[in-house]
Amino acid sequence: MSNPELQFILTLACPNRPGIVAGVSTFLFQHGCNILEAQQFDDTESGRFFMRTVFNVVEGEAGLEALKTEFAAIAEGFKAAFSIRPKAEKRRVLLLASKSDHCLADLLYRWRIGEIPMDLVGIVSNHPRETYAHLDFDGIPFHHLPVTKATKLEQETEIWDVFKSSRAELAVLARYMQVLSDGLAAKLAGRCINIHHSFLPGFKGAKPYHQAHARGVKLIGATAHYVTSDLDEGPIIEQDVERISHQDSPDDLVRKGRDIERRVLARALAWHLQDRVILNGSKTVVFRD
Amino acid sequence: MSNPELQFILTLACPNRPGIVAGVSTFLFQHGCNILEAQQFDDTESGRFFMRTVFNVVEGEAGLEALKTEFAAIAEGFKAAFSIRPKAEKRRVLLLASKSDHCLADLLYRWRIGEIPMDLVGIVSNHPRETYAHLDFDGIPFHHLPVTKATKLEQETEIWDVFKSSRAELAVLARYMQVLSDGLAAKLAGRCINIHHSFLPGFKGAKPYHQAHARGVKLIGATAHYVTSDLDEGPIIEQDVERISHQDSPDDLVRKGRDIERRVLARALAWHLQDRVILNGSKTVVFRD
Amino acid sequence: MSNPELQFILTLACPNRPGIVAGVSTFLFQHGCNILEAQQFDDTESGRFFMRTVFNVVEGEAGLEALKTEFAAIAEGFKAAFSIRPKAEKRRVLLLASKSDHCLADLLYRWRIGEIPMDLVGIVSNHPRETYAHLDFDGIPFHHLPVTKATKLEQETEIWDVFKSSRAELAVLARYMQVLSDGLAAKLAGRCINIHHSFLPGFKGAKPYHQAHARGVKLIGATAHYVTSDLDEGPIIEQDVERISHQDSPDDLVRKGRDIERRVLARALAWHLQDRVILNGSKTVVFRD
Amino acid sequence: MSNPELQFILTLACPNRPGIVAGVSTFLFQHGCNILEAQQFDDTESGRFFMRTVFNVVEGEAGLEALKTEFAAIAEGFKAAFSIRPKAEKRRVLLLASKSDHCLADLLYRWRIGEIPMDLVGIVSNHPRETYAHLDFDGIPFHHLPVTKATKLEQETEIWDVFKSSRAELAVLARYMQVLSDGLAAKLAGRCINIHHSFLPGFKGAKPYHQAHARGVKLIGATAHYVTSDLDEGPIIEQDVERISHQDSPDDLVRKGRDIERRVLARALAWHLQDRVILNGSKTVVFRD
Repeated sequence: MSNPELQFILTLACPNRPGIVAGVSTFLFQHGCNILEAQQFDDTESGRFFMRTVFNVVEGEAGLEALKTEFAAIAEGFKAAFSIRPKAEKRRVLLLASKSDHCLADLLYRWRIGEIPMDLVGIVSNHPRETYAHLDFDGIPFHHLPVTKATKLEQETEIWDVFKSSRAELAVLARYMQVLSDGLAAKLAGRCINIHHSFLPGFKGAKPYHQAHARGVKLIGATAHYVTSDLDEGPIIEQDVERISHQDSPDDLVRKGRDIERRVLARALAWHLQDRVILNGSKTVVFRD
Repeated sequence: MSNPELQFILTLACPNRPGIVAGVSTFLFQHGCNILEAQQFDDTESGRFFMRTVFNVVEGEAGLEALKTEFAAIAEGFKAAFSIRPKAEKRRVLLLASKSDHCLADLLYRWRIGEIPMDLVGIVSNHPRETYAHLDFDGIPFHHLPVTKATKLEQETEIWDVFKSSRAELAVLARYMQVLSDGLAAKLAGRCINIHHSFLPGFKGAKPYHQAHARGVKLIGATAHYVTSDLDEGPIIEQDVERISHQDSPDDLVRKGRDIERRVLARALAWHLQDRVILNGSKTVVFRD
Repeated sequence: MSNPELQFILTLACPNRPGIVAGVSTFLFQHGCNILEAQQFDDTESGRFFMRTVFNVVEGEAGLEALKTEFAAIAEGFKAAFSIRPKAEKRRVLLLASKSDHCLADLLYRWRIGEIPMDLVGIVSNHPRETYAHLDFDGIPFHHLPVTKATKLEQETEIWDVFKSSRAELAVLARYMQVLSDGLAAKLAGRCINIHHSFLPGFKGAKPYHQAHARGVKLIGATAHYVTSDLDEGPIIEQDVERISHQDSPDDLVRKGRDIERRVLARALAWHLQDRVILNGSKTVVFRD
Repeated sequence: MSNPELQFILTLACPNRPGIVAGVSTFLFQHGCNILEAQQFDDTESGRFFMRTVFNVVEGEAGLEALKTEFAAIAEGFKAAFSIRPKAEKRRVLLLASKSDHCLADLLYRWRIGEIPMDLVGIVSNHPRETYAHLDFDGIPFHHLPVTKATKLEQETEIWDVFKSSRAELAVLARYMQVLSDGLAAKLAGRCINIHHSFLPGFKGAKPYHQAHARGVKLIGATAHYVTSDLDEGPIIEQDVERISHQDSPDDLVRKGRDIERRVLARALAWHLQDRVILNGSKTVVFRD
């Protein structure tokens, strides 16, 4: 087993043309690297090519900065956007929650046991700390940012300040029940994951379980997606469903939905943190684990 | 094992009030019947009560007509709509199909091996018999009823004539790709099941797999529902989904969707024929097997 | 909506014969009760009949003890074992855990938010309290009962003492990794639920995820069952699975399995507490919600 | 969209070492080929590396034989077993069936509509042609090879003769209910797919649905695997499950299982024919579509 400290994740997106895989893999081979995982996708519709590679350095001293600098030349030839980073490096994540804390509690648990490695740099809620009296935040800074219609602008400015000052790289709306304004959504574009409690595009907007009950669907679902200014229209990362029946009241759907929401959000977050999700216009390429 | 020839299915829907189960079960007991299966649902929202019972006659000679007549008095007391019919009695079913024949072929197969007992009284298509050259219709009358915008009224009149003259009790749109007019939909209300190739209410209307591909969903589905004049809005009977990925083209979705469509339609049809589906306003009560 | 304080759950198991439903429902009607839910199962193999009914008292003053006493006469006529208890009454539950605390943390969370109503009367572990430093036990007595091969008898005696002295009605092995002796298993018969981390009967015994990896299965699962002296052979209450692939290492299976285990155990526990599970020889009748 | 006539599938398995991807992709680039799909798997346990690539020839005249000859030198350097073949080339497949023909009918349907491209070179059954009176074999040679204990050796010799003389590349046991002898299993090693009607390793051997019913499992499944002389122990290609309940009789399981069996077998067959399945000891690497 190779030293995880010396493993790197390379992702790349560019217009498709022959020779990309050869170029990348030859570069890695020549720099003493061994490919451990590789996934690629050739989108014949958009003509774009997407690649994710995990490699380790088996020979020599190829440092991260040197690798990046030298790879930039290859990437430029392919007009490629790319990223190379240590697999063991933890991303800085800000969690936002409201009264229902099942996703928050679940993510904290997965973080604590090391299932989802990340640096939790803050928890924001429009509810006070005592709402989560039974949750051990373990020293993670908590920010109580209450909000009313009149104070939404100020509150979102505070959220943005927390995001910046904590040097967060990702915001996770863990059942945060306030709709982000276009302005904040734009600032967080590609850096903010939401969990919507329906199988989108069905039941957008408020009270999706009540909508699902009213329509009489036979399965309910949840959708994790990147937040955009267009509500519930952001690129979908992951979805899942469970079977229900005519016997289920809206409250039953809320209860059964919690299990779906938390596993869908946890998967989406983990994949984002492992560079398994690449934006492709209004859609995503997801190299699942 | 009791004689299936002497098994009956009773369904009942009425305003809820105490004593319904006692009334029905005491009636059956006093008429020498034994309850084999029973399901009920008390809809606390609408205040309506739904019941399905399978029973057999263990003593005496309780004939179907006598049972019905005598039960009518009970039912009247509860302001109940009810049905009693022999479990072994086959319903008369008319199938409608278009060019894609995967649902048609599947239903024919299930009918042939006795999995879905029914009397197939006709097959209607807007395509000619040779479209299905490889399918053995086994003597079931085939009606080629081509249609254009200009002839839709006449064609639907012919469909209705076939339905009536074959004494069909149910029409199944087995990927019949013509939208029924409001007029025909109204005539077939509660007697016509359609399979829509999306997980409704997502992706109504035409080319749902292309819509699903464009939106980038991570699961695709199919929905069997009763046809109403409001397109793709009829009461849902059954739904199911399968996981897809960014790699799947619209053609891949069409291919993967066929498996979902045929099993969803087959289940909905079987349940309808077994009196497991009861309309509840714009929704259904489904006593699954 | 009826007053939940006045709702009762009746379960009944007896040899099948005509008139049971009529007898029970007439009894309830005559005692001013209204049936809210009813499920029944007629096992044609064993000739046994199973029933679960939720009812409320809409007229008069039918107290629980009076109802039980009077119903006993009906039950005796059917040679039926039965139970009537208030739906709102919480059962007393003892949790047992080992080092992996995902099921423990999950059940505590569901209990705290009221999703699984129960009285948690104790938590037993063979690991010390600090193993669960981040979990808020909220005053539930914790019993550290370490165990070695040499002290197993004594430790199990202590477990049994805790069970008795806390007046627990159910023990839940929430990934408690010690095999219960035949003696303790016998004492807890029908009152002890275990979660096994495989889709039984595949991969009994130790390290099921490693077995699954070695066999190369394409789905992994978990099984909640009543504990019997025959290891991993007890009556199954609930099972579920997730898809895996050749890429998944045993560690990946352990990680993915945690999600399956916790939801399977939570469902089984909730159903047991709602009297939805009735033993039928070496199998269960489960009236799912 | 590239010309499918000029698309090729390359698969490769070898001991892992740095430079394989670089070697292969550079070879393809230098021969005027563009990679359309690529999947790889680095088995850290066995130290083996597996790769599947779909590419097309965008420049020049690289013929198949020339490509193979030149690639052989690369492959030798990596001690790799490899295959290159035209994606559009159909494999020659022999189907074997017994009385239950749901898998046979299903595969014939998928073949007819072009969903599973293959050359069906024969159908073998131990039952006569009239068993499948309603199935259109469309000119595929049918071989009625009845079998008794006494004639098993002769019958298997005939099967082998049919396999050879039809130049079949794959045998598919589409619910063929005779256990192959070790001798025939050995001859067909890696070239014979079976569908077993249980979720292996649970319920090996005869009557798995009856075993499942007796054990009281809550999900049933099916398993497609390569046939080996060790019954029901061959490398698993695909599995799937469906939920059942205490209400389901063994006959219900048989009925519900048919749907699982046919979709699991169809997927396994399609993936085999697309070179998506590579043997890895007693397991498989499956690059799913």
